[in-house]
Amino acid sequence: MPALQFDIEAICPVTGARAGTLHTPHGAIPTPVFMPVGTQATVKGLTQRQLAEDLDARIILGNTYHLYLRPGHESIDRMGGLHRFMNWDRALLTDSGGYQAFSLSQLTKVTDDGVLFSSHLNGDRHLFTPESTVDTQLALGSDICMVLDECLPYPTSHEHARVSMERTLKWAERSLDRFRARMEETPRRQARSEPMPQALFPIVQGSMYGDLRGECARRLVELDAEGYAIGGLSVGEPRALSMEMTEASVPHLPVARPRYVMGVGTPEELPEYVARGVDMMDCVMPSRNARNGCLFTSRGKLIVKHARYKEDARPVDESCGCFTCAHYSRAYLRHLFMAGEILYSTLATLHNLARYLDIMRGIRQAIVLGTFPRFLDSVRSQPVEEPS
Amino acid sequence: MPALQFDIEAICPVTGARAGTLHTPHGAIPTPVFMPVGTQATVKGLTQRQLAEDLDARIILGNTYHLYLRPGHESIDRMGGLHRFMNWDRALLTDSGGYQAFSLSQLTKVTDDGVLFSSHLNGDRHLFTPESTVDTQLALGSDICMVLDECLPYPTSHEHARVSMERTLKWAERSLDRFRARMEETPRRQARSEPMPQALFPIVQGSMYGDLRGECARRLVELDAEGYAIGGLSVGEPRALSMEMTEASVPHLPVARPRYVMGVGTPEELPEYVARGVDMMDCVMPSRNARNGCLFTSRGKLIVKHARYKEDARPVDESCGCFTCAHYSRAYLRHLFMAGEILYSTLATLHNLARYLDIMRGIRQAIVLGTFPRFLDSVRSQPVEEPS
Repeated sequence: MPALQFDIEAICPVTGARAGTLHTPHGAIPTPVFMPVGTQATVKGLTQRQLAEDLDARIILGNTYHLYLRPGHESIDRMGGLHRFMNWDRALLTDSGGYQAFSLSQLTKVTDDGVLFSSHLNGDRHLFTPESTVDTQLALGSDICMVLDECLPYPTSHEHARVSMERTLKWAERSLDRFRARMEETPRRQARSEPMPQALFPIVQGSMYGDLRGECARRLVELDAEGYAIGGLSVGEPRALSMEMTEASVPHLPVARPRYVMGVGTPEELPEYVARGVDMMDCVMPSRNARNGCLFTSRGKLIVKHARYKEDARPVDESCGCFTCAHYSRAYLRHLFMAGEILYSTLATLHNLARYLDIMRGIRQAIVLGTFPRFLDSVRSQPVEEPS
Repeated sequence: MPALQFDIEAICPVTGARAGTLHTPHGAIPTPVFMPVGTQATVKGLTQRQLAEDLDARIILGNTYHLYLRPGHESIDRMGGLHRFMNWDRALLTDSGGYQAFSLSQLTKVTDDGVLFSSHLNGDRHLFTPESTVDTQLALGSDICMVLDECLPYPTSHEHARVSMERTLKWAERSLDRFRARMEETPRRQARSEPMPQALFPIVQGSMYGDLRGECARRLVELDAEGYAIGGLSVGEPRALSMEMTEASVPHLPVARPRYVMGVGTPEELPEYVARGVDMMDCVMPSRNARNGCLFTSRGKLIVKHARYKEDARPVDESCGCFTCAHYSRAYLRHLFMAGEILYSTLATLHNLARYLDIMRGIRQAIVLGTFPRFLDSVRSQPVEEPS
């Protein structure tokens, strides 16, 4: 039984951008969609009510690496799964944990078997295999799981990139084998009152080599998954190269399945990825930048600590309708930031995520109305500097 | 024009505890009332919507010392006052800043003129006088302002306590003189669209000497203020002594005016102060303890980091109806706490403040129904240890 149903409602005849709806066991998601990141079973600074009611987020991410280490996927499983544990009844996507095993851990060792790493919390050694990360995500109960893949640093030789891509392909096959075997077990997840179907997406790799990206995508498609991701971007390469790799991958993926570019992007990049046929994105940027004092507005970035905002009674963005902009001034946000107050993080995160989700809603509407090319032009001519 | 109207609706015939309503320019406050502390123009971790809608807090505190230093009371004045600055249209009480000038600053020097201190932020020297702290609080626009008083450490000699009490009395007189002169100025607070009347409470001091407390109260009453506070408690003395000093002060205060004990208390102490005729209290304990992992329940304190809660699916308090208890488990709160997540502070603060405000609502109802003595007995026999 498939977990997902993906309906494409409109396609931009100029760019190929798609507007659709991704139906999951935990609700329908209008696409293209930006997914807020909830690393440790929480989107930092927000209640789940704020996510659902103020932002109308339909799907958020959890990080398998973090949840595996703390509180532990088996513990979350016994608590009824991640949805119930964190009181989130909308959709959840979890990564495989591989990326964090590479980026957060030390003493990481990759073999054909999997990734051996040391916990960033206490140094304990752990092994992620394609099979174990599937098991972990089945325990979490994510609507969409991701296969274990090898994420290479940039730059990397073509030779190394090919070896790694072959490994990622083998891991994807092993992951789907395990996933399909587990989904047929009847006593699976006995602790759950209603076990839900789950989906597993393989990930296109190939570093910054278009030929490898294309080959990887074509060979993954043979696995007939419910959706496909493009990984290994945003690792320090020029932005033009990220776009080029997306262009080298997307045409090889099935039209009828959702496409997810992992870990992107800036507000200006969101429509660029959509213009290349991407349906799903995630990034820590809106939430992390918010906490660090960088607010995204329709007129560019606002650096909240600047003295010019000390008595600025205007909202962060005068054309924004979010909870923060409806109720608070730049002066108050600056005060909270300078004073190190928790409420700053909450209000800033609410605003930046609202900005991202508003952009996605605008993109979707433009695709449906047939005005996406004009939308794209106007975004490309907008300032990204600080507004007056 | 008085700022406040205080209606007493019921008095416990056994204890003298009072149930009433304090009408302020920013709404009515059922009393006895516990006031959450919002030191830096925010109750740490909560949005003002959570304070109003989830907790139904009718009045919160701001700390003049902190706001004077950052962002500065003149800046807040130009932004339309503290209510508008922090988006809080219910009542606000501010302290005079004196207590923090003693407790947070170094190189503090007290003279008859006022308190000279060094900012805890950058070491700059500042002087608080009785007149300046009134001006600062008028700029903030607090519904209830407090006079500058001298707060002594415990223990202190009777001789020193008397000298200090005389100073506090003189300062109270100077404060009220300044306050009354300023309230008659017509062009006051031109930046405000609607300048509101404000009230100023003097503070009973006298260290832990009942005779000084009584004398201080009697002499302050001659100033005919709209309400009276009892300060200088919770400075390290035994709890029995705090109660004794309250008993030595309250009988000398006017029956028809609200009585405020500053900086108390534990959940068990709230009804004890009410039983001694107190109408208003504030304390950082519910919010600070929440952030530090100590949750108050109807069955005692719950230390959230304890391993026994790792897979405990129950709410913090099974008989609590707060937002946190309605939606989240002990296991999830423990996870957030262990992971250092912001959301922990929000959910824990919401719960602890809900607990405090629920206790106050229970006390008020018992006074109105005539069952307060029984209520007090049941509180005195309740456990304060960790619940199972």
